[in-house]
Amino acid sequence: MPEIRRLRMAAAGLGRMGARHANHFLHRTPKAELVAAFTPDPKEIEWARKNLEPWGVTLYMNYDEMLKHEGLEAVCIATVTTVHAEQTIKAIEAGKHVLCEKPLSTKLEVCEKVLTTSSAHPELKVMCGFSRRFDSSYLSAYNLTTSGSIGRPTILRSQTCDKYDPSGFFVQYAEFSGGIFVDCNVHDIDLALWFFSSDGKRPKIKSAMAVGVTALESGLEEHGDVDNGIGIVEFYDGQIAYFYSTRMNPPGQHDMTEIIGTKGKLSVNAHPTAGLLESHLPSGIHREIPQNYYERFEHAFVEEARQFTDAVLENKNVPIDMEGSVEAVRIGVALQDSLQLGKKIWFDREGKRVEEESILKARL
Amino acid sequence: MPEIRRLRMAAAGLGRMGARHANHFLHRTPKAELVAAFTPDPKEIEWARKNLEPWGVTLYMNYDEMLKHEGLEAVCIATVTTVHAEQTIKAIEAGKHVLCEKPLSTKLEVCEKVLTTSSAHPELKVMCGFSRRFDSSYLSAYNLTTSGSIGRPTILRSQTCDKYDPSGFFVQYAEFSGGIFVDCNVHDIDLALWFFSSDGKRPKIKSAMAVGVTALESGLEEHGDVDNGIGIVEFYDGQIAYFYSTRMNPPGQHDMTEIIGTKGKLSVNAHPTAGLLESHLPSGIHREIPQNYYERFEHAFVEEARQFTDAVLENKNVPIDMEGSVEAVRIGVALQDSLQLGKKIWFDREGKRVEEESILKARL
Amino acid sequence: MPEIRRLRMAAAGLGRMGARHANHFLHRTPKAELVAAFTPDPKEIEWARKNLEPWGVTLYMNYDEMLKHEGLEAVCIATVTTVHAEQTIKAIEAGKHVLCEKPLSTKLEVCEKVLTTSSAHPELKVMCGFSRRFDSSYLSAYNLTTSGSIGRPTILRSQTCDKYDPSGFFVQYAEFSGGIFVDCNVHDIDLALWFFSSDGKRPKIKSAMAVGVTALESGLEEHGDVDNGIGIVEFYDGQIAYFYSTRMNPPGQHDMTEIIGTKGKLSVNAHPTAGLLESHLPSGIHREIPQNYYERFEHAFVEEARQFTDAVLENKNVPIDMEGSVEAVRIGVALQDSLQLGKKIWFDREGKRVEEESILKARL
Amino acid sequence: MPEIRRLRMAAAGLGRMGARHANHFLHRTPKAELVAAFTPDPKEIEWARKNLEPWGVTLYMNYDEMLKHEGLEAVCIATVTTVHAEQTIKAIEAGKHVLCEKPLSTKLEVCEKVLTTSSAHPELKVMCGFSRRFDSSYLSAYNLTTSGSIGRPTILRSQTCDKYDPSGFFVQYAEFSGGIFVDCNVHDIDLALWFFSSDGKRPKIKSAMAVGVTALESGLEEHGDVDNGIGIVEFYDGQIAYFYSTRMNPPGQHDMTEIIGTKGKLSVNAHPTAGLLESHLPSGIHREIPQNYYERFEHAFVEEARQFTDAVLENKNVPIDMEGSVEAVRIGVALQDSLQLGKKIWFDREGKRVEEESILKARL
Repeated sequence: MPEIRRLRMAAAGLGRMGARHANHFLHRTPKAELVAAFTPDPKEIEWARKNLEPWGVTLYMNYDEMLKHEGLEAVCIATVTTVHAEQTIKAIEAGKHVLCEKPLSTKLEVCEKVLTTSSAHPELKVMCGFSRRFDSSYLSAYNLTTSGSIGRPTILRSQTCDKYDPSGFFVQYAEFSGGIFVDCNVHDIDLALWFFSSDGKRPKIKSAMAVGVTALESGLEEHGDVDNGIGIVEFYDGQIAYFYSTRMNPPGQHDMTEIIGTKGKLSVNAHPTAGLLESHLPSGIHREIPQNYYERFEHAFVEEARQFTDAVLENKNVPIDMEGSVEAVRIGVALQDSLQLGKKIWFDREGKRVEEESILKARL
Repeated sequence: MPEIRRLRMAAAGLGRMGARHANHFLHRTPKAELVAAFTPDPKEIEWARKNLEPWGVTLYMNYDEMLKHEGLEAVCIATVTTVHAEQTIKAIEAGKHVLCEKPLSTKLEVCEKVLTTSSAHPELKVMCGFSRRFDSSYLSAYNLTTSGSIGRPTILRSQTCDKYDPSGFFVQYAEFSGGIFVDCNVHDIDLALWFFSSDGKRPKIKSAMAVGVTALESGLEEHGDVDNGIGIVEFYDGQIAYFYSTRMNPPGQHDMTEIIGTKGKLSVNAHPTAGLLESHLPSGIHREIPQNYYERFEHAFVEEARQFTDAVLENKNVPIDMEGSVEAVRIGVALQDSLQLGKKIWFDREGKRVEEESILKARL
Repeated sequence: MPEIRRLRMAAAGLGRMGARHANHFLHRTPKAELVAAFTPDPKEIEWARKNLEPWGVTLYMNYDEMLKHEGLEAVCIATVTTVHAEQTIKAIEAGKHVLCEKPLSTKLEVCEKVLTTSSAHPELKVMCGFSRRFDSSYLSAYNLTTSGSIGRPTILRSQTCDKYDPSGFFVQYAEFSGGIFVDCNVHDIDLALWFFSSDGKRPKIKSAMAVGVTALESGLEEHGDVDNGIGIVEFYDGQIAYFYSTRMNPPGQHDMTEIIGTKGKLSVNAHPTAGLLESHLPSGIHREIPQNYYERFEHAFVEEARQFTDAVLENKNVPIDMEGSVEAVRIGVALQDSLQLGKKIWFDREGKRVEEESILKARL
Repeated sequence: MPEIRRLRMAAAGLGRMGARHANHFLHRTPKAELVAAFTPDPKEIEWARKNLEPWGVTLYMNYDEMLKHEGLEAVCIATVTTVHAEQTIKAIEAGKHVLCEKPLSTKLEVCEKVLTTSSAHPELKVMCGFSRRFDSSYLSAYNLTTSGSIGRPTILRSQTCDKYDPSGFFVQYAEFSGGIFVDCNVHDIDLALWFFSSDGKRPKIKSAMAVGVTALESGLEEHGDVDNGIGIVEFYDGQIAYFYSTRMNPPGQHDMTEIIGTKGKLSVNAHPTAGLLESHLPSGIHREIPQNYYERFEHAFVEEARQFTDAVLENKNVPIDMEGSVEAVRIGVALQDSLQLGKKIWFDREGKRVEEESILKARL
């Protein structure tokens, strides 16, 4: 009787999202086992002593030590964004497969460095965790798209709307977030890249333009950021994506996407709801929606862990390639720049930013 | 460092639903471990050799042997309905906790025998698996009900609508199913008992009446069964539940419930959907719904396994008591009898069936 | 140039609904002109002096006088239910076409007398106003049914749920209403008769049974009525309709119908809403529903006036025949009787009520 | 007894929409009477001979003659867009009130000329027919906005999505339409101006930028137009509107708007449907949506006629002022220019277009 081969994982970072990832690999990914976990944070270590150690997970407060854990094969990185890239590179260099929370970095050069390192190690699976790609509704939409149900995907509209958090968290976080287009809309950008390449060809950005306002959190302004942002991205060969993100959606998380093709449209989450319950009360009919992205995408995160594990164990391609993940950051950064500069940013067909004049001339 | 205490489970029956239960305890219930599994069926054993044994599960083709498995603490029974009761009783007598798929039996006397046995062993947790009680939408509805949001629950409407299966399965199965009200509506009946006891008092049945037709599966008639059934149950003290079930719902599974109180109504699944995707095509707007009860209630089954496990480990009451589960069968049987007799069936306040005249006289 | 021929109408009864009918014929039915109106009520006459007379409508406080109005061709009767039948008969005998608000009477014998009179005057159009038949959603459902989209209509579920009116109106009104099944569910019964005859054959009632409770308006009990009623009606040849009505729906009017066929189901108003607006607020997502049946069916009433007018002007059959309207009352009365007697009421194939025993014997 | 005073209207243009307007004033606006109608088109005259003349409407094939019709008080102009402005000016100069179909003109200078003329005649009511403002869902949204339910309206998203018409009509029409932003999104722009002035202050445009593609109708390119357009408009003082329009929506007309405030969001038509019917079939659940803007907004058009009539008869302000209607065209033209120039267009606080550099300098 052959025994089951399980992937030996470590979890790096045990904050809100990191703890969830650790739990997913520990309890909800049958073919993986969580053998180690790292956090530099004493409070998080305390949590891990109660919740991970009794299940046989070895805890580390030093990332490099953790990488040396006997038999470790792969790392799930969910530390603060600022160290994602460095830890990913170290893990790759230590010969570990990596699942890294998005974004790799808010800085494009840093992302590219990770890409270079990962490209030099084709034997390792390295994947950036764009969780929406594992959501069953998005997966169904993607399958309908590739099967031709909606013709050629032409326009994509996508939004990331967070519940308003009156604690001031968004302002404190603004210094590190990379801005609303890199932090929130990077998911929507990734969806655009995904759906627009459903014919097998990678879409090429042509222009990016963005505007925004600070409606509630005026403190964001000093970071050049906004709490409501709208961006449009043109791609060469006639495709356009446009995005909205807000930090002030009152009832909860409302992420929605429309993929508009020449023969049909797919809409994901046009009628948001947290479940199948409605209350009929004297004040009308009421329903609730998820309160945060984890409530909305919990099962997608679990599926992400499963698919990453399978890709490593069976030596298959990971479902999200690194080039696309870096491209998503590039586009997010361009939108953020457009927001701050107040002007449209142009790219040539090689993906290099160019001055507007040269593009307009090239048209003649 | 204290090690985690996990409940040592066995799975009995590895058919469609049994295999799912086995997987839930094996992979999706962190505090349980599946140590043994039983099936008398060679095909199912083959499946188990591939899917359970490599995970360290010992397989048995003899139920009594399985009960003797070293260290076994609890059994999940999902064999054919006809042996549920016998196996439950054996497990209890062997000192094991039991989670048994509904219904305990389609025969009331048999159910009552299980109840007697289980009552004699208060140290053991015995629970019948009415999965809907663990669905998040039903749980939210229940919490709103107990918190008084809708006043006194007065009317409950609930339906179980299965996708049409043209294979003739329903006719073959009719001999053992107990009839549509026992097989399908028993879930709806259980919901009525649950919501109507949300004030802490168990509702008492006053009358049952049912009608039905065989619209597509005329073969059901020889079993005294129908493929569309409608039943009404009156309870003493002014509460009424009414039910519908069908074997011919075209797009898939559509189970729906309304709890109507003196101040509000809660509706679960009035707007059925399999996810958050809609297709906008030349022919209109389309969405899909779950194809079967597992697609609809998968997460509820997992939650059921978790809550049962917790109840045993922490020696708490199981969330569904046996008296209610037997009462649900009693009501289902009464509806089935009413269907066949073509008349209303009356109960006195002690739950004993009485002749109509005596009730009508008692009114005077 | 031929001038337009317009139907000369009178409106009898100018209460809440009567005033609306008067307005529909006056302002919203181009091919009709309202030439006269009658009410015995001084307050209503005052309203009419302001709202009808300036448009050239002659007012009457004597019904018989109104019938003698020069050139009058047809009457729309929306007086109190108790005089519907008498006024309808008088109008017919005066040679006028009649559109009468439902129900003709809450008493079956009276209905039948109207039917006899109307049958004796085949040259006159006489129609009972079951407004839902003119609602665009019901019309679409009916067209899909007759076109075979759902196979044979087998089960019909329909409900009439009124917003709770705390004024005590329902209790005062109970003396005249005929009871909840005659007053509310008569619409649902009419729908069952309509959809079940979509193959051209009129369905024949086989049994009726009903139960109910008085949850909020205990004063209804002395009238033998309830504020929540549930009824089931079996028809010969394998069709069943079941009904619910309540006087205590908190958010407003929620009338809903499902027509369940052997190949598909049509649902009307499963997702009730007053329009296309939803509010996303910190407390969740909210929408409103119509507050009363007129808000829900306003356009259906206008369409009813138009179709009645056309039928008269073009000498076509009216869309609702009198036999069916009387049959709806017969069924409503049977349900009300079943509610009070606590037993099932049986009919033979000729539509005569029979004792249960004879039916059960006939089965042998 | 005072007789009713009714407004004597003429209808100019009896094409598809013009015929509807004529009917609305003739049959569905009680306080108006249609006394005259004009069309230069022989086919339309033929229609009018059958449908208007028998109701007493005098027909004209010369617009100037029609203006001289005895007793005429107001004109509803629904001729081809290219003559809207000229006919409006003539009507004003002849002392008639005017309800003119949108847009006044696709040329800004022409719109301004109408504005000048109308300003010189404050005794006359002149209104441009932005029909959505009279839709009950938009009206409810507006009332919730002015009552403060959603805080300060900050972002507005609005789309106009037409059913795909494979006849090539859109290409033929492109020469006169003014382009997709002027023809379609002018409604959405008007909504932005309406909701953003709900605090009593008129919003001032700061920038406009647009992109688009021709996905299906390549013939549009020679007119500088597209079949899918996306535009963003910034207003001074922190408000942004963004728009989408398409000529290729497969299931029908899907116009949708979200008004996003600092405390809540209102969504109009997120869950589009043509009525309250859904079909549950083997292929899933289906519903239809309106096939064109008239199916969606029929009742709004009738309400528009009613409100215009009331404003004239009672000498009240018309609900839509001319300045705003001209501003909507100005913004539409700016978006169309941005589409063609490939750059963002800036406005100073006085509403004058300025070069980008001057704005960017002004920031320093």
